[in-house]
Parts: sequence; structure tokens; C-alpha cells
Amino acid sequence: MVMKKFINDPNNLTSELLEGYSLAYADKVKLVDERIVVRAVPKAKDRVAIVTLGGAGHEPALSGYVGEGMLDASVVGDIFAAPGAPKVLDALRMFKDHPGILLVILNHAGDVMNGNIAFGMAEKEGINVKKILTAEDIAPGINAYREDRRGLGGCIPLIKIAGAVAEAGKPLDEVLAVAEKFNETMATLAVTMKTATHPQSGQYIAELPDDMMEIGMGQHGEGGGTGPQKIAPADDVSALMIERLIAASKIQSGEKAMLIINGSGATTLMEMFVIFRKAHQVLAAKGIQVVAGRCEEILTVQEAAGFQMTLGRLDDETQKYLEAPSNAPYWVTR
Amino acid sequence: MVMKKFINDPNNLTSELLEGYSLAYADKVKLVDERIVVRAVPKAKDRVAIVTLGGAGHEPALSGYVGEGMLDASVVGDIFAAPGAPKVLDALRMFKDHPGILLVILNHAGDVMNGNIAFGMAEKEGINVKKILTAEDIAPGINAYREDRRGLGGCIPLIKIAGAVAEAGKPLDEVLAVAEKFNETMATLAVTMKTATHPQSGQYIAELPDDMMEIGMGQHGEGGGTGPQKIAPADDVSALMIERLIAASKIQSGEKAMLIINGSGATTLMEMFVIFRKAHQVLAAKGIQVVAGRCEEILTVQEAAGFQMTLGRLDDETQKYLEAPSNAPYWVTR
Repeated sequence: MVMKKFINDPNNLTSELLEGYSLAYADKVKLVDERIVVRAVPKAKDRVAIVTLGGAGHEPALSGYVGEGMLDASVVGDIFAAPGAPKVLDALRMFKDHPGILLVILNHAGDVMNGNIAFGMAEKEGINVKKILTAEDIAPGINAYREDRRGLGGCIPLIKIAGAVAEAGKPLDEVLAVAEKFNETMATLAVTMKTATHPQSGQYIAELPDDMMEIGMGQHGEGGGTGPQKIAPADDVSALMIERLIAASKIQSGEKAMLIINGSGATTLMEMFVIFRKAHQVLAAKGIQVVAGRCEEILTVQEAAGFQMTLGRLDDETQKYLEAPSNAPYWVTR
Repeated sequence: MVMKKFINDPNNLTSELLEGYSLAYADKVKLVDERIVVRAVPKAKDRVAIVTLGGAGHEPALSGYVGEGMLDASVVGDIFAAPGAPKVLDALRMFKDHPGILLVILNHAGDVMNGNIAFGMAEKEGINVKKILTAEDIAPGINAYREDRRGLGGCIPLIKIAGAVAEAGKPLDEVLAVAEKFNETMATLAVTMKTATHPQSGQYIAELPDDMMEIGMGQHGEGGGTGPQKIAPADDVSALMIERLIAASKIQSGEKAMLIINGSGATTLMEMFVIFRKAHQVLAAKGIQVVAGRCEEILTVQEAAGFQMTLGRLDDETQKYLEAPSNAPYWVTR
């Protein structure tokens, strides 16, 4: 198999993509210490900082969300691989003079291990840091333990909300409390039609027959889904997914929803709009109002065809922070 | 072949995608008259309006750029097919009480024909409308006539600039003059690695062998390129393309550049960053400063793998308008 990607030596991929990204948005972000993306214009010292970590290969996540109103730093590993704890600790130390730091960790083994080690070391150094784990994938079932759920694209609106609370000058406890409130109400389900090639090995990360799709597949092709099934019309897929997400988020008639269709890579915006339309209809029929919609690639899986659907229950406070201004390259809000 | 797309009845595709889009961004856009996307909050009557037309299937273009600071209306045809002249005329009539209308037409046969007919009819009705043709594809050669060049993704920053001039309250002549100045300096070149399926017929729109790419292929799989060639490292592809664009745009050392890498669909942001990095290096080595960078899917070709590289020469005026505020769903600028 020939890999159809525009790359150079696969060993240099992460360095080159981070360099290209920081050149393209040089007015907003810069790359320091080889693997840490920070704001070009640092946040005021009297505000809580937001830091996250994760592997590369899912662009624009997570470095695409560094900027005013969202992240202060994104610590990057290699392709699909968490960064080491020392690098995460370096990033935390950069913000030690701030009133506090919120470390956002997505629930994947490597991220959790390295994030927790760095967190413990930072605490020992007297840095005021708290952590939040995102684990909103409902593929294992809507009553599964948080530890058994993967962290998917829902981390991005969570970072948006936490970042806005921090920007508003609130203390670390309040930043964490608002982020946790949102965390409890959001749920994501993924579907894959065509899996991707690993950009370094050139190997498929999973295989799916030509006429099949799988609901619940993880973002590196991991299982945990419902197994392959025949490709169904978009409305059927959308209705099935939104019903499960409504049950998981416990959203009720009369409440306000955030609905995001996050494309995996090859799935077009055209398809995402068709999917959004049906999910919106199902919500509307239940008296649930979508007050925050988005169709976009916010966290990708190379050239996989598929999408993640994320539903969140909003109240006035989380809605306000979700809509607050942001200047991160891939989530600009006026 | 089984088409791997999330759709319903292909005959309803355009209606459903437009409905989904206008639901997802209901605070910004709305759908009127079945095929015209307009702003949710109309522009003040004393400002020039900007209108464009084009087929669906290239999302987010062109309807994704309706919003404050950019378009007032996007008239949509069917998949890869221009809208009829009567619908374009309907859109122009909506803005007849404004001091003028700029109609942006991309150089594709159907768009030009229907755009021109509507333009002529609007003039006869006494509507103050002027038109601008974008045709910046340099695949036919850097000295080819404008009539022989396709209009590619460069129309989007042009719309951004024209929209900002209009928003600033300038008269139609000035909106056109600034847009034409930018139009003269911009150039685009596309490369395709894997072509797409037509979402209604399920047929490939062109074929490329597994180890081949083609520079200069059109956005519907049309020829006019250099023919298939072996896939080369990203840096080689990027350097070859930017050198041709530099020659076409006539940009000189000491001047300011806009550089956009516009993904076709399946090509990842990761790859776009790698491509951007090399093009930026080539420009920097010639003393050309990139003051406006962007890596994103701004005009797509379904799930094709490839990208368009657009280079524009900016002066203080066009740079100012390119950076001016915009609130269109897919080009937000603060």
C-alpha cells in the first residue's frame, strides 16, 4: 500500500507540523522548548492558566486551541503518543506565578500517566495546580465508569468554557467547578466508515469492509464499538446517535443544548450538515433547544471518514462562557 | 463501488445540507427562497452588498462566508452545478435599495453564464450592480488569459477584502477597485493525490493511480494539469508550487504576502502545516514576509486528497481589509 499523504521523513513529522502551524499563525501562537505551543501574547499574570497535553496527528486538536480565551499551553507528544511527564512539568512551571493552573487531561492511558506524574511533581514544587479528566465517550455504555470512557472531542468546548472563566479573572476553584459542571453534562459518540493510515507507519489503524461502518470506534481505531454494521442513511445514523446522547446527558425538555458535529477527516461538511439537521430535529421534537451549534473538524483522526457527535447540557453560566470571546486559531469567537 | 458518505436520498442533498447549515449557525445565517443563504441580521441599508453564486458540494464555500464583514448572500445551485439566473436575480433584487451590489463570479462556465444573465437583467431593472470575475488558477500557465483560468479558493480572501471595504461604508466603485487590485495579485495552484466521488452519482470524478498525484487538476477532477506524476516528498511539492505562484503573482523581495493552504477534503491539517512550513521558508529566503497565513479547508472537493495553495501580494490597504472583523461562520476575525 502506498500512503497518500504530503509528508517528508516521518520521523520529523511532529516537528515540522508544529513549525508550520506556528508560522501560519505567528500572530497568535509560538512554539517553545520544541514541543510546547504557547500564546504569542502571554496572558496577564493575575489570571489562572489552562494547560493540556496530547499526541499529535489529530490537528487542529489540541494546539489549535491555544490563544486568548482558551489554552495557555499545549504540550505535544509524537503522532498518537502522549508527551513525556518532564515536558508537561516544564509547561506547568511556565505558569507557576499565576494564581493557579488547570491541567486538562483526556482519558487515554499515556496522557493520564504522564499528566498525573507531572501534576504530582508540580504539586510537590508548590505550584497551585488542579486537574480535570475528560472521558465523555459513551461507546462503553451510558452508565460506564468514567475510567472506562475515552476522552474525545468534547474536551474542546470544555477548554473553551474553562478558558473563559479563567480569562474573567475567577479563582482556580471556580474555573474547575464550572468546567466540571459542563464535564458532567456532556457526552460524545463516534462513528467511523473508513479508517485512516498511521502517518508514520503507513499502516491502516483498523479495517472496515467497503459497505460497513462502526459506531463507537475510538479515535485511534480502537474497538469498544458496536461492531461493524451496514452503512445506513444519514438520518438513521444521526437519530440513533442523538437518542443515546440525550439519554447519557440527561438533558430534558425545556433545557438548552450544545450540539457539535466534529468531522474525523475525510467526511465532508456537506455530510456533517445533513447529520446536524436530523439531530436538531430530534432535539426540537423533544423540546430541547440548540443554542450552540458547530459543524467542523475540531479533533481529527487523519483521513478517516466519520464523525463525533457531542451533546452538552448548558445553563446560563456555561452558555455565557462558551460564547465568550476567543482568539485561538481554530475557535475564534467575537 | 459503495459510496462511503453519510447522506440520505441524493436528490435531497442540497436542500438538506443547506437546512442543516442554517440550523447549526442560526444566529448568523438563514436560508430564504430555498437556495439563497443570507445573514440572520441584515446589513445596514447604506452599505454596498456583496453577493456570490456557485454549486454546492464544496462546503464551506461559498455559503460558509455569509456574515458580517463578508457576503450578504450566497446563491446555491445543486451539487457541482451553478444556480439558475432567475435565482441569482432574486438575490440581487433583495439588495436593490443598497447603494450598490458587487457580484462575485468564479470562472466556471455555468457560474459565468448564469451570473452574467442575472447581472444584465438586474442592470436593466436599474439596480446598481458591478461584477468581478475570479480566475486565479495558474495551471494553464502564468501568462494564460483570465478567461482560460478557473476560479479556485482565492475567491474567499477576495470576498473577505471586498466585504470589509463595503462594511466600511465605501462606494461601489471603491469596493470593486480594491477587490480588483487584490484579484490581480493573487494566484492559486492545486494538487490532487486522490480524487473524490460525486455524492449523487457515486462515481469517481477522476482517477489517479495509487502512487501518483497531479498538479493543476481542477476542483471537479477536470484536467489542465501537468498530468499524473509520482508522489514526491511534501517539501518538493511545496517548493515547486510556491515558486510558480511567486512568478505568477509578481511578488518581490520586501513585499508582504498572504499564503493560504486550502485542504481539498481528506488531506489533514498536519500535512497542510508541513506544506505551509516549506512555502514559508522559500518566501522568507527571497525576503518576502508572510503577514497573513491560513491552513484550513475553505473550499473543498468532497473527500479528495490534495490542497490548493494561494499566494497574494498585499499592500497596507488590502492587508487592513483582510484583517478587518468578520463574523461569517467559517471565517471569524476579531
